[in-house]
Amino acid sequence: MSPHDAHTATIHSAAQANERLKSLQGQIDPSVRTYRHPLDPLSPEEISIASTLIKANHIGKRFQFRYVTLVEPPKRTMMAYLDEELAGRTPAQKPERIAEALYSIFDHETGWSYKVYEAVVNLDTNKVVKEEPLPEGVSEALSFKTMGDAQAILVESKEFKDAIAKLGLPDNIMIEIDPWMYGVDMPKFGPNRLSFLCYARHPSNNHIDGNIYAVPLPIIPLMDLQTMKVISIEPAASGGTEDGNAYNTHPKKAIDHCIANEYAQDLQPKGLRTDLKPLQVVQPEGASFAVTGRLVEWQKWRFRVGWNYREGMVIHDVTYDGRRVFHRLSLSDMTVPYGDPRTPYHRKQAFDLGDIGAGLSANNLALGCDCLGLIHYFQGALAKHTGEGEEKGNVVCLHEQDMGIGWKHTNYRTERAVVTRNRMLVIQQILTVANYEYIFAWQFDQAGAIHFETRATGILSTCLIDPGKVSEWGNVVSPGVMAQYHQHIFCLRIDPAIDGWKNSVVQEEAVSLPISKERNPFGNAFVTEKKVIKTSSYSDAAPEKNRVFKIVNPSKLNAYSKNPVGYKLVPHTGQLLLADPGSVAAARARFAQHHLWVTRHRDGDLWCGGKYTNQSYREDGGVQDMIERNENVENEDILVWHTFGMTHIPRVEDFPVMPVEVHQVSLKPADFFERNPAIDVPASNQMLNKSVLYDANKSGSCCK
Amino acid sequence: MSPHDAHTATIHSAAQANERLKSLQGQIDPSVRTYRHPLDPLSPEEISIASTLIKANHIGKRFQFRYVTLVEPPKRTMMAYLDEELAGRTPAQKPERIAEALYSIFDHETGWSYKVYEAVVNLDTNKVVKEEPLPEGVSEALSFKTMGDAQAILVESKEFKDAIAKLGLPDNIMIEIDPWMYGVDMPKFGPNRLSFLCYARHPSNNHIDGNIYAVPLPIIPLMDLQTMKVISIEPAASGGTEDGNAYNTHPKKAIDHCIANEYAQDLQPKGLRTDLKPLQVVQPEGASFAVTGRLVEWQKWRFRVGWNYREGMVIHDVTYDGRRVFHRLSLSDMTVPYGDPRTPYHRKQAFDLGDIGAGLSANNLALGCDCLGLIHYFQGALAKHTGEGEEKGNVVCLHEQDMGIGWKHTNYRTERAVVTRNRMLVIQQILTVANYEYIFAWQFDQAGAIHFETRATGILSTCLIDPGKVSEWGNVVSPGVMAQYHQHIFCLRIDPAIDGWKNSVVQEEAVSLPISKERNPFGNAFVTEKKVIKTSSYSDAAPEKNRVFKIVNPSKLNAYSKNPVGYKLVPHTGQLLLADPGSVAAARARFAQHHLWVTRHRDGDLWCGGKYTNQSYREDGGVQDMIERNENVENEDILVWHTFGMTHIPRVEDFPVMPVEVHQVSLKPADFFERNPAIDVPASNQMLNKSVLYDANKSGSCCK
Repeated sequence: MSPHDAHTATIHSAAQANERLKSLQGQIDPSVRTYRHPLDPLSPEEISIASTLIKANHIGKRFQFRYVTLVEPPKRTMMAYLDEELAGRTPAQKPERIAEALYSIFDHETGWSYKVYEAVVNLDTNKVVKEEPLPEGVSEALSFKTMGDAQAILVESKEFKDAIAKLGLPDNIMIEIDPWMYGVDMPKFGPNRLSFLCYARHPSNNHIDGNIYAVPLPIIPLMDLQTMKVISIEPAASGGTEDGNAYNTHPKKAIDHCIANEYAQDLQPKGLRTDLKPLQVVQPEGASFAVTGRLVEWQKWRFRVGWNYREGMVIHDVTYDGRRVFHRLSLSDMTVPYGDPRTPYHRKQAFDLGDIGAGLSANNLALGCDCLGLIHYFQGALAKHTGEGEEKGNVVCLHEQDMGIGWKHTNYRTERAVVTRNRMLVIQQILTVANYEYIFAWQFDQAGAIHFETRATGILSTCLIDPGKVSEWGNVVSPGVMAQYHQHIFCLRIDPAIDGWKNSVVQEEAVSLPISKERNPFGNAFVTEKKVIKTSSYSDAAPEKNRVFKIVNPSKLNAYSKNPVGYKLVPHTGQLLLADPGSVAAARARFAQHHLWVTRHRDGDLWCGGKYTNQSYREDGGVQDMIERNENVENEDILVWHTFGMTHIPRVEDFPVMPVEVHQVSLKPADFFERNPAIDVPASNQMLNKSVLYDANKSGSCCK
Repeated sequence: MSPHDAHTATIHSAAQANERLKSLQGQIDPSVRTYRHPLDPLSPEEISIASTLIKANHIGKRFQFRYVTLVEPPKRTMMAYLDEELAGRTPAQKPERIAEALYSIFDHETGWSYKVYEAVVNLDTNKVVKEEPLPEGVSEALSFKTMGDAQAILVESKEFKDAIAKLGLPDNIMIEIDPWMYGVDMPKFGPNRLSFLCYARHPSNNHIDGNIYAVPLPIIPLMDLQTMKVISIEPAASGGTEDGNAYNTHPKKAIDHCIANEYAQDLQPKGLRTDLKPLQVVQPEGASFAVTGRLVEWQKWRFRVGWNYREGMVIHDVTYDGRRVFHRLSLSDMTVPYGDPRTPYHRKQAFDLGDIGAGLSANNLALGCDCLGLIHYFQGALAKHTGEGEEKGNVVCLHEQDMGIGWKHTNYRTERAVVTRNRMLVIQQILTVANYEYIFAWQFDQAGAIHFETRATGILSTCLIDPGKVSEWGNVVSPGVMAQYHQHIFCLRIDPAIDGWKNSVVQEEAVSLPISKERNPFGNAFVTEKKVIKTSSYSDAAPEKNRVFKIVNPSKLNAYSKNPVGYKLVPHTGQLLLADPGSVAAARARFAQHHLWVTRHRDGDLWCGGKYTNQSYREDGGVQDMIERNENVENEDILVWHTFGMTHIPRVEDFPVMPVEVHQVSLKPADFFERNPAIDVPASNQMLNKSVLYDANKSGSCCK
């Protein structure tokens, strides 16, 4: 591969830039330009304009773009704007349309060495208002283009070919490689490294959609992205418990004991089950939701669906029945540290949003696959490596789901049962990050609650293990295949606006009272204990205390309970980060060390683990730094961050593809309303639902 | 009411008994007789035969039956029987068909005083094999008949009328009463007491399906069931925080500040929302399950649905692909203690299964209401108070549900996405216990997991509170209406048979390692710690340690991982019992004080809180007593009990009817299989699923 092929983003003259800008402006539909909401993501044309403006400042230079994305207007500006909108008025002034871009400029006309810059572009004035190199020692988020280039060069390298030759692989082997972020272990390493996990297609079928993770190779190459040269090909231990941490345990025929362990349906040796009958969701009168641009209205809920390369979907400006609830909801970042200490495995620690991007990794969702029923898809837009904007199709889907009974009561005196179904609106995105898949969904229900659901699926990250051995660092899930213990730790960013812009967080627990003649003569009594979080700080889940966090508006009281109106966060109780607090792994993910963080809102405070996570050796500008500002968070414009996750001790059943592991976090109204908000949902009845009675004689039996 | 009306169960001669028995035998369809499985519940005819046999031993006596239920054959007998079945052979010998009955025999020809007996009846030999009075001081489970009789007498009593007259209620008031178990507070009270919670229909509508719990009355009458006389009418505090625990705070016009706060759709003053479009589940080729009698087969699962008056549904003899997994799954009992110490509120502590019965309280489920799609209903059978058996209709429903994506992987190299849907089989029952509803469901999935889901809904148990006041013992959810803090603590009984009859429980945690040059140089390492539970004992959830409990068969190892084949219980982490360990409330529910109990199986060890919970003052024969037998539980026939629940700090949104509060416990295969058992589920595709694209112009908008 020649480096020339890789970078086609050069602009050669001012005239060329002007012409290109004029043409791009012309491509924007005037009605779209007028309609566009300040929170709408950048369009492909806007992305192209931003990158062209940047390139025009560096005539003749070779570029490679990592991203071009919307800088949302300052919150103060948006508060005024959204207050006007909520009042039913057209806001007098539109906030400025600002883009941020990250890109490399190559040092020379040929060759790989580059410097990374970050620029801010005003799309209203067509000006690059700021351009700065990335801070010293910081690595940029990875682009698929860079990873692809590096991989192509790796496989042609002598070092790699020599290393492969030593493994004694079968002749017809097809090697496949996943570029992986280089998780650092100490500050001294410079930026711009990339590592690779190596696998092979199983020689027995050599199938293009074979499960390569069932055939792991015991080497991890490392490249310098500035030179595109192989730094080293590190051996990766394949020993078991009996080998301690010794290395060169693998035999000459490294993978002969691996089997083809396939996930694709057409590769199942025993075929597929044949007794699953179709189940369809039919909505004969259409959807209950309405989508206008990025605005969604459904069952008294109203919100906007934003999107960007890093977070993917973002939920903006959520109101219920005209009352403000949340200003912005998003997954801020996540970390996936692995617990195997054997170098170089100890460096496996992904930050899938910060290192790459949830938007960048988003699946193109398809009818019949990812949801049932009546589906609406949202589109995204990304910058190609050239800087040109392009649409990314069907990155978010929206549909209604029946979630069982919503509420029920039977009056036993009259035997009248009143029952409603629990209809939900689901906004979903799916990420593929090499082997793994994450399914993220925001779910709105009719009783005023919002849920965030994560489903982990896809394929385990595996490494080779010698025949017959087991290891204390993971579980053997297929012959020769060890799945290392790891964690998935997510952090939700909740920007609340509970009935107004100023909120507090109250930590509430249920506590026993000691037996006493006056207050607890029989020993059954318990009360709640409430503590307002006054200064930016953290807290943890404590299910044994029934601890919940109520986000309240202290200046508005519920008419009946006299409590401040609020939403409660029932924290997920999953285990926090296991890495030693003194480790680099922990310093990079301080957000993963507590379940809840409350900080004062500042524009730009978007990233729980810091803005630059790739090859970071500490979390710079993350939630820990935010709380250290020691700001008042009582009755203020605050942010609530919820860290939650799972420690994944892989089961054999998680291979060759993992059944969804589902986790959910809920935000439920707590004295926000004066009654169950779903009280006016019509009763469920057979006229509408058209259920059918099972008839053993008519229904096919699965065993006859 | 005359006591004579109440008891029509007398048999006047041996001849009458014989004739009745002959007629009942004749009613049993011979094919049913032949077909009946030893785990099938008693039929109505069997119940009638058992009660007739009992009555024939007491010619001329007046009876009242509480229950007649199947005594499942000894486990040792069933092991042999089920092993034969699993091997595809017809078991040579049928276990004896045994019934157990609980009933009162009245002391005199007229009058209320009675003695309670428990009898065992052999239905194969038509013999009463045992009859004993209940132990001294023990109260029987309540029957609706007794409660109804007592209530009818109460409302006619002078004491009650006088107490009501003092409340200054409006003239047109309609009073409604819920009989409630009398939760004891000390051993000295005798058995056979019943208390009553009193409410009224709101005078503004006086509707027969009005929400009486919005109009609570501040008195709690108490009756002696042996005399059917009022013991006392206890005043119930309606004060607030400012009143401490003082009593007579309520004004002369006790309920004038209460409002009509209705749940029924036709009583909503603002009408119903009109923008919810129908959503139907259509299964054009029928169900994927097959039901033959009580046997269910679906997607390699095979099990039997049992049922009785106390537990309601029971899942028997669960196998997957011909391998034994669980012998018996059921909800054993639950307790609902309230935290208000003000007498007589401190006695509010229900055991809904032991005091009354989940089967007895089961809703008659209806098409279009309680599930969507293709539904099969199971019937139950109960003894009427006369002893006659009767069918109880549609007490359990069975249907398939789509639960989103089952697993997915996209090969980013080829962009081929392989995705399956997560189909589940749901077996559900719904209980109405006066104000509250519980929805319980066993869910089987295609990846070998079994989930137990609880949904709490219905109406909060409320008490009166004076105008404008708030209380530390509950939340004001409607004017004049306080919902006391309380807990719902469930206990699942899991009788495992993981690939055989002898199992162990392994407690497993994920633990960090200290930084050390040899084993953890970079601080990222963690391992699992496993501890086999050797002697009958308890443990608790510890999510901060990622603690799970693996039920394993130590004599069978997974071929790949070398771990014993097992199922893991991910414990629910909900708060345990808050009542002081020295309280009667705690002594009655020792099962509610730890999350997990492992005991050696004994026939009859069915009840976590003891067999006789009504008015119990300690848990006799419950799990605490079982573990104190100090038996070996390693590689033995064991029972695993999982206690879980919620502390319910009511929200205003939980009234007038509570949106479902959902909790789930999962039993997942952990190295039981050699791969994801759902690997052979066919891919999800549009040809089968027939999803539809949203068209903003065609779908009705909710805001136009």
